[in-house]
Amino acid sequence: MTSSNRGVAYVSQGKVEVQPIAFPKLEDPRGRRIDHGVILKVVSTNICGSDQHMVRGRTTAPEGLILGHEITGEVIELGRDVETLQRGDIVSVPFNVACGRCRTCKEQHTGVCLTVNPSRAGGAYGYVDMGGWVGGQAEYVMVPYADFNLLKFPDREQAMAKIRDLTCLSDILPTGYHGAVSAGVGPGSTVYIAGAGPVGMAAAASAQLLGAAVVIVGDVNPQRLIHPKRLGYQTVDLSLDASLGEQIAQILGTPEVDCAVDAVGFEARGHGHEGARREAPATVLNALMEVTRAAGKIGVPGLYVTGDPGGVDAAAKEGSLSIRLGLGWAKSHSFFTGQTPVMKYNRALMQAILWDRIKIADAVGVEVITLDDAARGYAEFDAGAPKKFVLDPHGMVGAT
Amino acid sequence: MTSSNRGVAYVSQGKVEVQPIAFPKLEDPRGRRIDHGVILKVVSTNICGSDQHMVRGRTTAPEGLILGHEITGEVIELGRDVETLQRGDIVSVPFNVACGRCRTCKEQHTGVCLTVNPSRAGGAYGYVDMGGWVGGQAEYVMVPYADFNLLKFPDREQAMAKIRDLTCLSDILPTGYHGAVSAGVGPGSTVYIAGAGPVGMAAAASAQLLGAAVVIVGDVNPQRLIHPKRLGYQTVDLSLDASLGEQIAQILGTPEVDCAVDAVGFEARGHGHEGARREAPATVLNALMEVTRAAGKIGVPGLYVTGDPGGVDAAAKEGSLSIRLGLGWAKSHSFFTGQTPVMKYNRALMQAILWDRIKIADAVGVEVITLDDAARGYAEFDAGAPKKFVLDPHGMVGAT
Amino acid sequence: MTSSNRGVAYVSQGKVEVQPIAFPKLEDPRGRRIDHGVILKVVSTNICGSDQHMVRGRTTAPEGLILGHEITGEVIELGRDVETLQRGDIVSVPFNVACGRCRTCKEQHTGVCLTVNPSRAGGAYGYVDMGGWVGGQAEYVMVPYADFNLLKFPDREQAMAKIRDLTCLSDILPTGYHGAVSAGVGPGSTVYIAGAGPVGMAAAASAQLLGAAVVIVGDVNPQRLIHPKRLGYQTVDLSLDASLGEQIAQILGTPEVDCAVDAVGFEARGHGHEGARREAPATVLNALMEVTRAAGKIGVPGLYVTGDPGGVDAAAKEGSLSIRLGLGWAKSHSFFTGQTPVMKYNRALMQAILWDRIKIADAVGVEVITLDDAARGYAEFDAGAPKKFVLDPHGMVGAT
Amino acid sequence: MTSSNRGVAYVSQGKVEVQPIAFPKLEDPRGRRIDHGVILKVVSTNICGSDQHMVRGRTTAPEGLILGHEITGEVIELGRDVETLQRGDIVSVPFNVACGRCRTCKEQHTGVCLTVNPSRAGGAYGYVDMGGWVGGQAEYVMVPYADFNLLKFPDREQAMAKIRDLTCLSDILPTGYHGAVSAGVGPGSTVYIAGAGPVGMAAAASAQLLGAAVVIVGDVNPQRLIHPKRLGYQTVDLSLDASLGEQIAQILGTPEVDCAVDAVGFEARGHGHEGARREAPATVLNALMEVTRAAGKIGVPGLYVTGDPGGVDAAAKEGSLSIRLGLGWAKSHSFFTGQTPVMKYNRALMQAILWDRIKIADAVGVEVITLDDAARGYAEFDAGAPKKFVLDPHGMVGAT
Repeated sequence: MTSSNRGVAYVSQGKVEVQPIAFPKLEDPRGRRIDHGVILKVVSTNICGSDQHMVRGRTTAPEGLILGHEITGEVIELGRDVETLQRGDIVSVPFNVACGRCRTCKEQHTGVCLTVNPSRAGGAYGYVDMGGWVGGQAEYVMVPYADFNLLKFPDREQAMAKIRDLTCLSDILPTGYHGAVSAGVGPGSTVYIAGAGPVGMAAAASAQLLGAAVVIVGDVNPQRLIHPKRLGYQTVDLSLDASLGEQIAQILGTPEVDCAVDAVGFEARGHGHEGARREAPATVLNALMEVTRAAGKIGVPGLYVTGDPGGVDAAAKEGSLSIRLGLGWAKSHSFFTGQTPVMKYNRALMQAILWDRIKIADAVGVEVITLDDAARGYAEFDAGAPKKFVLDPHGMVGAT
Repeated sequence: MTSSNRGVAYVSQGKVEVQPIAFPKLEDPRGRRIDHGVILKVVSTNICGSDQHMVRGRTTAPEGLILGHEITGEVIELGRDVETLQRGDIVSVPFNVACGRCRTCKEQHTGVCLTVNPSRAGGAYGYVDMGGWVGGQAEYVMVPYADFNLLKFPDREQAMAKIRDLTCLSDILPTGYHGAVSAGVGPGSTVYIAGAGPVGMAAAASAQLLGAAVVIVGDVNPQRLIHPKRLGYQTVDLSLDASLGEQIAQILGTPEVDCAVDAVGFEARGHGHEGARREAPATVLNALMEVTRAAGKIGVPGLYVTGDPGGVDAAAKEGSLSIRLGLGWAKSHSFFTGQTPVMKYNRALMQAILWDRIKIADAVGVEVITLDDAARGYAEFDAGAPKKFVLDPHGMVGAT
Repeated sequence: MTSSNRGVAYVSQGKVEVQPIAFPKLEDPRGRRIDHGVILKVVSTNICGSDQHMVRGRTTAPEGLILGHEITGEVIELGRDVETLQRGDIVSVPFNVACGRCRTCKEQHTGVCLTVNPSRAGGAYGYVDMGGWVGGQAEYVMVPYADFNLLKFPDREQAMAKIRDLTCLSDILPTGYHGAVSAGVGPGSTVYIAGAGPVGMAAAASAQLLGAAVVIVGDVNPQRLIHPKRLGYQTVDLSLDASLGEQIAQILGTPEVDCAVDAVGFEARGHGHEGARREAPATVLNALMEVTRAAGKIGVPGLYVTGDPGGVDAAAKEGSLSIRLGLGWAKSHSFFTGQTPVMKYNRALMQAILWDRIKIADAVGVEVITLDDAARGYAEFDAGAPKKFVLDPHGMVGAT
Repeated sequence: MTSSNRGVAYVSQGKVEVQPIAFPKLEDPRGRRIDHGVILKVVSTNICGSDQHMVRGRTTAPEGLILGHEITGEVIELGRDVETLQRGDIVSVPFNVACGRCRTCKEQHTGVCLTVNPSRAGGAYGYVDMGGWVGGQAEYVMVPYADFNLLKFPDREQAMAKIRDLTCLSDILPTGYHGAVSAGVGPGSTVYIAGAGPVGMAAAASAQLLGAAVVIVGDVNPQRLIHPKRLGYQTVDLSLDASLGEQIAQILGTPEVDCAVDAVGFEARGHGHEGARREAPATVLNALMEVTRAAGKIGVPGLYVTGDPGGVDAAAKEGSLSIRLGLGWAKSHSFFTGQTPVMKYNRALMQAILWDRIKIADAVGVEVITLDDAARGYAEFDAGAPKKFVLDPHGMVGAT
């Protein structure tokens, strides 16, 4: 077996680079042998909006960090304790690293595993402050607690035929879905999704799968609304001066929706012609309280951080937002935050993909590129391309 | 206002007839004035499989009972206490009569209202032992507690344009949906529906709306499988000698499904070439325990009765079934029975219809006939026609 | 029947007064006859912390507003459409005015009824901006939609014997309970309650009833901790410089709890020796995110307002709070706000009182006073007395 | 380390015996090394009613089977892959053997683990057809997937001080609790528990912990009602000719309860003077449908089997029961069956014990005996002693 490996490294603000890196070992970040792990040949690995937070210098990510937490792979080496997997299996890796043995994992909250990250609850691959697990935008990667973490696709050939959709199971689809589910979306719901990026589009496609009557996607960038419109979603253009509620009323006949999803997070900009030019981190949440019906739920898959070196003011730098909570309180709203516990959803969503119930690759705009093209993918995505870039380190996806 | 009225009466075993009947008053079955009621001009009113139980003489329904509990109407007269409705509103009537004031109604269990039926929990229009409320297979009908019970369609013109679908909101769609929901159907589920009649087809369409990966419909009558097959559902033919599990395995690769719905009830027949000729009331439940996965749920919208004069043996006559409960227990199954609380679902399902998310009229085979043709509708339905007959007393539906 | 009546009026900042008022009619605030209403002789009516917001001038309550939304009464007159009640019944009145006929009421969210308040969702008796329903700190009061709203006690004599506890069913007990339930409290939970006032004590007693392993009550005023300590609860003194987490760790061995309840709301003060002297409206929520475990829930029965004329700064005046949402997001917290839907809980809590499972009068410090003593009750409560003042307009409680 | 071991073996119908057995190895029943396992020195191990089914010859248990699935132990040897445990830890062992890696385990349904038992879903220690895992009524026992399965007590000394209660966490307390929870018991509920044996008493104590207003325990053997009466529960004597409903009405004023638990299972006897002398396996379920309110839930922790060599008739021998399902259907009942997933509850219940919220040892009548006295324990329990016998193989419990 080869022992060479290459991966996408964060170099400095705005810069990533494919570098030679060590071939993964069955070891945790503290150097302890872990026989419950496997080594994967990476079949596909996606660039995520939250990778951009690091690359834009909005975090304390160290130089040289190997990026990548959206991974689909082929098992090529198994630790001795692994029981349910075999060489050749094609598997989806939830972006959360989780032990399956702590209280929160047992309660299906794998997004806040208590053991895989010494500094706080929750681990991830290739992410600052998430436990030091090496990222998977690489040729090979190690996954611990493999029996617990990995979702095996039932058939290798079928999996490769649908790999552009299945690659979305590691993060983007479950994350959008979690937003929709926690917002209470079900058959007949009217839904507003703030943000037309990949999380928003995944939330929209999920809302559709969940039976929503009508799904409205909003963005401050009218260019990003072209794609959802083409797919048949309703849209609202937040760069206009017509308020969000007014635009919703034009669609629904009432300025409120049943369910709302914040697929933007802390890097939000203001609304309206002027507002859209400025970062205004509480805009989305305050707007969602305006347009969500009484007793409604607000799902918040969009990332909010505990500290933001690039925040617009002192409060934002320490993660404080000026929220009109009284507004939500008057309407008996509830709010659901946090990293998506991917494992709670990925099996069901895999079934939905395999039986052609959801076209997630189209919804999020999957575009497959080579590992060597990673820097270009980062740059285009940062510039607002309505695409989900999928790296194909071994040419296995392109070949399908 | 006219004071004439005509309705479909149960005459004797196998016989129904349209008769002149009294024009409805704002009075309950005990003759007390009820100012919370309204009088409806019936726009459409469907024949239900449970009406057939009465007409076949499987109940103690008295001669002269006016049938009909699936009603859509236009408000033409309002009691003084009615606040939210107006003349001309087009409304769907949940088949459950419910007061909205007792404990079970307040907890959304309107199928077992504690006050509208002196003899037991739960009321309905036009049904034996359900409180004596006059049925709605008629030109006019009275609905009590109208503010609580009625679902108003937002727009009259839109409602009339979709009336073939909206007429399914009074019973058949929510009943199928309740079966699917109580079986735990959600995105990605594999679902087995026992019975290809209207309840089964409504459950199948509901499972689809809920995001099921694959929906399998089974019946002992292969003729009834033609329609679901045409609509794209998977089917199993229970008149074959291949077992249900074997047929499911051919579709899914495993003999078990995630979720199962009993859309047959106590008039079940056995499985297999021989079995299908005989009534065998526990067949469906026992089969569902066989094919439902461990920890799965079984929804039972199909009707089971407390007494059945036509039962195959002494046990069946008193509603006792020989159930292999140990089988379900070994698999940690749970079971959900009872009349559907329509109000819990009808608003969301109306939205799904109005936004074109479900084609329920096609799924259940709606066929509109005149009131005068009611007897023919009963006879054809009883003979197994894969149709849902909708009576159109005033020619309002035909006109659309 | 007498037609005289007297009630507690808000006169001006800091001042209330018992005044002669009109005897109630079966009319809504817009003067329309409502035959679904009843008139109650008030048996007991409690002073609430949220009344204090008005009396302190922190709202736009108009002069002359008759206060009081915590009402227990005897039915003395019934509208023609009332069906389930009789003269002489002793009933608890949920503080929410609710119609029982709109979407949110049907879904058990009676705290945000859509019809009883023209200006926004949700109505209440005797409260600014809540629909104009006359308050019940009076001798007599009118309750609309009586069949829906009222909880009848099963036995008059038993009710009067336990009236000091049952009077807590109209608001304070369900509100504390709602906080505990929405925080996810169950058997074995460790619970932190912010605030040792009546809402906090009701939440503590509710957490106990729900089976919590340990209940910790915190307050910035050490005097208010004497009572919870005496009742056997754990306490933390937030005027100390030891942090909340440190004090919790001394009790539990870990600085985090499973469940947290904000029983303080927008009039919060800071923590620590210095902090406790200043109002700091986001203090409680930020502290709860600190001490609630990953994947935990935070119940927010404490009131947050959409506007506060007395707010500490411009943001607070419009109800905006500087919340460290990133902290909660990192821990996957969820947040539950809004007026308590009393009807969802009051029947079960009545049973708990009648079968001696909860001693809520002792927990909240019920003290019965005459109607004429209302002003004294307001003043003492405002000064921090750890009591729940209950007005006894007809001497019916004192007599028990 | 010693390599000797002794355990309680099933010898023949009615006969058990303490025999020398092999010292446990880190091997599964098929002889494969399992490095995720630990070896426990057994601190306490309880005799269970379901052990009696085997000993009475009502199953196909083979001669020589080592009994015991209710185990508390001290970790003395750890497999190489165990990460969260250490030598000397005192741990509770859920009776379900579960892998923590399959779909049902991940969804918290550890009672029906898909991998630990080749013949069907669900494994257990020392039980026929449950995967061949050696029982723990022994000095030493092996537990696989130890990080996942074991619940570690936070403090050894505290654990030994409360060991009589904590020993109930492996089965009896969670099983009773599961019955209560699945019956929907909460604050204010009225609850009927069928069966005053240990499962029934654990369900009663659990209902109490969950806040039930009133808990009624019924049994056909009046002797077994003495203990619940002494503990303050209400009781009904099913050997009397007064019906269950009548006896409930004497307590509650109504013949129905909110929630019902079947803590008897398939070895039920009939009700009434005559009935109580005969086995009548569907009696309990049929009675529970009679006395459970409309929309109520019925928890069925009592064991029903797929085959019973000692069944009263042919139907019973294959696990079929003549159930009046129509009765439950008319009342919209739901039914919850199966092995308790202990891990879903044991941590919370441990907390309830450690903070003195439940006295489960008293409720179930814990009596500690030596391992050598096991046969006597079996015999007395079989004869109806209202006791929960706890074996103490190393004298560690007696010493506390």
